[in-house]
Amino acid sequence: MSTAWKSRYALRTLRVKGSTIRELLKLTQRPQVISFGGGLPAPDVFPVQRFEEACRTVLEQHGAQALQYGATEGYEPLREMIARNLGRYGVVAQSENVLITTGSQQALDLIGKLLVNSGDRVLVEAPSYLGALQAFNVYGAQFISVPLDDDGLCTDQLENALRLKPKFMYILPNFQNPAGVTLSEERRHQLIFLADKYGIPIVEDDPYGQLRYEGEHLPPLVVLDYKTLSSHNGLPPANVIYLSTFSKTLAPGIRLAWIVAPSDVISRLVLLKQAADLHTATFNQMVAYEVAKDGFLDQHVKLIRQVYRQRRDVMLQSLAEFFPPEVTWTHPKGGLFLWVSTPEGTDCRTLFRAALAEDVAFVPGDCFYADDNKADEGCRHMRLNFSYCEPEQIREGIRRLSLAVKMHVRGAQPSLEVVGR
Amino acid sequence: MSTAWKSRYALRTLRVKGSTIRELLKLTQRPQVISFGGGLPAPDVFPVQRFEEACRTVLEQHGAQALQYGATEGYEPLREMIARNLGRYGVVAQSENVLITTGSQQALDLIGKLLVNSGDRVLVEAPSYLGALQAFNVYGAQFISVPLDDDGLCTDQLENALRLKPKFMYILPNFQNPAGVTLSEERRHQLIFLADKYGIPIVEDDPYGQLRYEGEHLPPLVVLDYKTLSSHNGLPPANVIYLSTFSKTLAPGIRLAWIVAPSDVISRLVLLKQAADLHTATFNQMVAYEVAKDGFLDQHVKLIRQVYRQRRDVMLQSLAEFFPPEVTWTHPKGGLFLWVSTPEGTDCRTLFRAALAEDVAFVPGDCFYADDNKADEGCRHMRLNFSYCEPEQIREGIRRLSLAVKMHVRGAQPSLEVVGR
Repeated sequence: MSTAWKSRYALRTLRVKGSTIRELLKLTQRPQVISFGGGLPAPDVFPVQRFEEACRTVLEQHGAQALQYGATEGYEPLREMIARNLGRYGVVAQSENVLITTGSQQALDLIGKLLVNSGDRVLVEAPSYLGALQAFNVYGAQFISVPLDDDGLCTDQLENALRLKPKFMYILPNFQNPAGVTLSEERRHQLIFLADKYGIPIVEDDPYGQLRYEGEHLPPLVVLDYKTLSSHNGLPPANVIYLSTFSKTLAPGIRLAWIVAPSDVISRLVLLKQAADLHTATFNQMVAYEVAKDGFLDQHVKLIRQVYRQRRDVMLQSLAEFFPPEVTWTHPKGGLFLWVSTPEGTDCRTLFRAALAEDVAFVPGDCFYADDNKADEGCRHMRLNFSYCEPEQIREGIRRLSLAVKMHVRGAQPSLEVVGR
Repeated sequence: MSTAWKSRYALRTLRVKGSTIRELLKLTQRPQVISFGGGLPAPDVFPVQRFEEACRTVLEQHGAQALQYGATEGYEPLREMIARNLGRYGVVAQSENVLITTGSQQALDLIGKLLVNSGDRVLVEAPSYLGALQAFNVYGAQFISVPLDDDGLCTDQLENALRLKPKFMYILPNFQNPAGVTLSEERRHQLIFLADKYGIPIVEDDPYGQLRYEGEHLPPLVVLDYKTLSSHNGLPPANVIYLSTFSKTLAPGIRLAWIVAPSDVISRLVLLKQAADLHTATFNQMVAYEVAKDGFLDQHVKLIRQVYRQRRDVMLQSLAEFFPPEVTWTHPKGGLFLWVSTPEGTDCRTLFRAALAEDVAFVPGDCFYADDNKADEGCRHMRLNFSYCEPEQIREGIRRLSLAVKMHVRGAQPSLEVVGR
């Protein structure tokens, strides 16, 4: 009789497929597997003691408030802190522009709920963050994919895509997931110019912005948008919704992130959030505020940058040392991921099984493409995470992976030759 | 330019109106106001010290795990504990039947997402829980309302409603929100019989089930369903999805609740939850497990029952002492609310303003009706919460409220006579 439910599922549930990553990562749970698969922060840099102190302070001083229902918008001192911190990067925001969400995934879900009617087009990078594709997919989004290269989204290919009138663009400008590339300053200006020309707004997802290991910080799209708009009509920033999170700077296990948007957009999102989970856990917000305050967050981000920079460098060195010359990879200036490209004729899904046999894991690139046509292109890529494993594991993992890669690349080449004959 | 977004809102956002309760409760923030408005637990019984110990234990022993990403399904030991506890009430469940959600509101949102296509009918009690109406409304539900009386849903009026083929019924059998009434055992059997006859499944929402202050615990619908089905086809329980939460027994500020359902329904919900917020905060789940374990939860629920029983009794006594005889109210055997009925011609929205002038607040009954026609019926009701205020405040609040009520009831009668002439 559990078909009593099955026959009742809404149409939208048919669109939601099991995440390949999810299924793949289950295979990587064996302890001997070195996993470059997940997008997990290094657990060894979690500020556990600071959390412990913060929990004690919050419960001792504000226990009744911390364990009670709270406002849907979020804990006011935390909203103010976030608005203040954004000011450093030139983002003009008050607390009324900040909505606290239960992780960035909820931000994406609420944005999908707010903006996407079934059949609406959403412009995304190819490849893009799988969680965003899933969130918009639930509401029936059709995707328009624009490719990216080492300088991020190929803005020279944007105009044709914008003529298809997407409802909005979803862009990860910094240390993109999965490709690890960063949108150049020149292209940021082009993107904002075209967004303005075609009247297409942008959702700017910036989970890794603070995790830069080299080069200069580039202005967020929300800031460039503000400057462009201000210069020609004097209105407040409005074309960009900006997302960020504590998941990569403090800890993902507390599920805290935020949306920055014009206050009338925030008001609509608040109503949707109220219906979605009433509000984000009061306790978590108060603890995060207590952890982050008095400059701790900045200091901690410096530590994370050091640790991750080293891990990135070890991964780059190991790739150079072990991988065959036909294989290339991106050189991320920050974030958690790099993106490996294998020669034509290779298939990263086959390679994934071969890698697992060597006790090493990654995510096959096809998972990150919105349309199935382009997923073939994705099969020549692997996403490697360098934040989670310790340096020695990274070196050993890349060595193991290189064995699978060499075998697979060699295996692929003759078969191509056979085809060529 | 913030209209750049406005012109892009999805159709569903137009359905979501600002909650009246939300707006009303803002008016009740003044410190001198005694509020019977919110559905808030008593902050003075939060087990703050136990939480403090649990946070320390979790962070010291499992800090890296607690602050890391976790499984969408939930923290396995917590799922097992919940499944085990359900067994006491005769609910047959394994951990695979339990999905941890970010509060019960998320459970309602996921169920709406899973089951409701725009225009689908959902059968609800009149009145019903506002948050559920909002959650299903987002997905375009049309509501069929069936009235309730002192014995809960009027099952003698159910059959006509079921002929309209609702997708499912949403039922609060115990100490209903807002009416405080409990579905009698006889009617539970009738409900399950009719659900089976018409093949219409049930979402059973049971946030207050453990907070019974008198009388015998009644079998949950999910158990009766199981017995009925087993007796005629031997299949596992499947017609009822059961919801409960820690919000009323531990604390709402940690946002932890759960869905119990057949495992294939759980699998679909897991995919939707993954797209909605990846997973519920690992830290909160581990802390709640640590708080609840070794019998603490049972012991704590006993304390809450004592405190709330006293508050309910004080409210009932005060109502009897201060209120005029034309006004009646329910006698809840548990939960957080009672439901006051005022004579024909009165309007609780007007009464609400009068009450605020006396520095006392409640929620006008019309908020809890799914269709606007029946909201007029709701205007003759008030929902009073008795869990939040301390006994002396309850007595004083009811005294103040009685002043507004007497004035309004007297004011209403002559005006009816004028109309009658």
